[in-house]
Amino acid sequence: MPVITVERKILEKNDQLATQNRQLFAEKHITVFNLLSSPGSGKTTLLEKLLPMLAESRCGVVEGDLQTDRDAQRIAALNVPVVQIVTNGGCHLDAGLVRDALTNLDLDTIRLLFIENVGNLVCPAGYDLGEQKKIVIISTTEGDDKPLKYTTMFRAARVCIINKMDLLPWTDFNIETVKRNALQINPDLQFFTVSAKTGTGMQELSAWFKSQLYK
Amino acid sequence: MPVITVERKILEKNDQLATQNRQLFAEKHITVFNLLSSPGSGKTTLLEKLLPMLAESRCGVVEGDLQTDRDAQRIAALNVPVVQIVTNGGCHLDAGLVRDALTNLDLDTIRLLFIENVGNLVCPAGYDLGEQKKIVIISTTEGDDKPLKYTTMFRAARVCIINKMDLLPWTDFNIETVKRNALQINPDLQFFTVSAKTGTGMQELSAWFKSQLYK
Repeated sequence: MPVITVERKILEKNDQLATQNRQLFAEKHITVFNLLSSPGSGKTTLLEKLLPMLAESRCGVVEGDLQTDRDAQRIAALNVPVVQIVTNGGCHLDAGLVRDALTNLDLDTIRLLFIENVGNLVCPAGYDLGEQKKIVIISTTEGDDKPLKYTTMFRAARVCIINKMDLLPWTDFNIETVKRNALQINPDLQFFTVSAKTGTGMQELSAWFKSQLYK
Repeated sequence: MPVITVERKILEKNDQLATQNRQLFAEKHITVFNLLSSPGSGKTTLLEKLLPMLAESRCGVVEGDLQTDRDAQRIAALNVPVVQIVTNGGCHLDAGLVRDALTNLDLDTIRLLFIENVGNLVCPAGYDLGEQKKIVIISTTEGDDKPLKYTTMFRAARVCIINKMDLLPWTDFNIETVKRNALQINPDLQFFTVSAKTGTGMQELSAWFKSQLYK
């Protein structure tokens, strides 16, 4: 089957480039997170709230979108260094796209780099970008069975942020159910429950990000 | 670039199978809709509410998921014929998978077939399944800029269902903004605003589905 061969070659090439990115991040003492979720779970809003709380951690952001630089504009408005990758329909970022984006950031001034991937719970899961950890974000307006359906993503993630806690009272979403479902797929997954909108849980989350910095 | 060639061959093969599916649906006088959205926009809940309202239209359902037959179980509980396709990580349905699924349905008894695609606003947009129309579902808890980012999907769709209207008061989602953004991408797009949970707008939507049946 030629498709499988091509796919494997693409992934091998991606892994080589991801390893190079990872070495570069280690040399520069930059902690890097790959943020993954469905469209509309609130990744960019989460960053808008987190970045001012993490101002002393000297953040940078790489934004991935299929189209538009709207998200990068939202981040740039906070005076945080940001690069937008437009994939032109590509359903995930890859290590080569990230490497190219890095040439537009001054890595000597950045300690914490967030890569906001394309909104997609499927395809980005298989592509290592060189990050320390993948973080999956799910919102309380999605179904609490998502971890059972999107197993590759929840297995790849080290951290799960449950966002939109402010909407919880108006949904059927059950926090204990989603945690139980996710832990069934990935017993080591660490959780944060937040509302980027109201600020609930954001102090704890930003403190955790600070704890992940190089000393 | 071998990838592009393989991709084109896959799409050509898919289009051939989709044409065969479309001919079969026409012969059998079955109206078919391909339902597309992010994970968690409420596709299955929408079907759970619609199917009893459309009981006289003799519905059938093809469920697509990466893992689990949870959605098919929810539909089967309504005594509606349903087949589950588990893609095992595949990020979209294709015409061949649908053709195989159809062998498990009695097409002579079905007039209205819903194909619930994998939760993904990117990859399924490019794959014709043989449906009459693609329907994109977006919920009020997602950003109202989604049409500008997921242009291929909103261009491919003929109908856009805006779901979770019950949560609108607690979000920053603006109905006029999302419509304006979507019409900028696809001027012919038709809208329905509903809450599958409370029933708002569901009568109008089910009446529209009935109007789409073969006479």
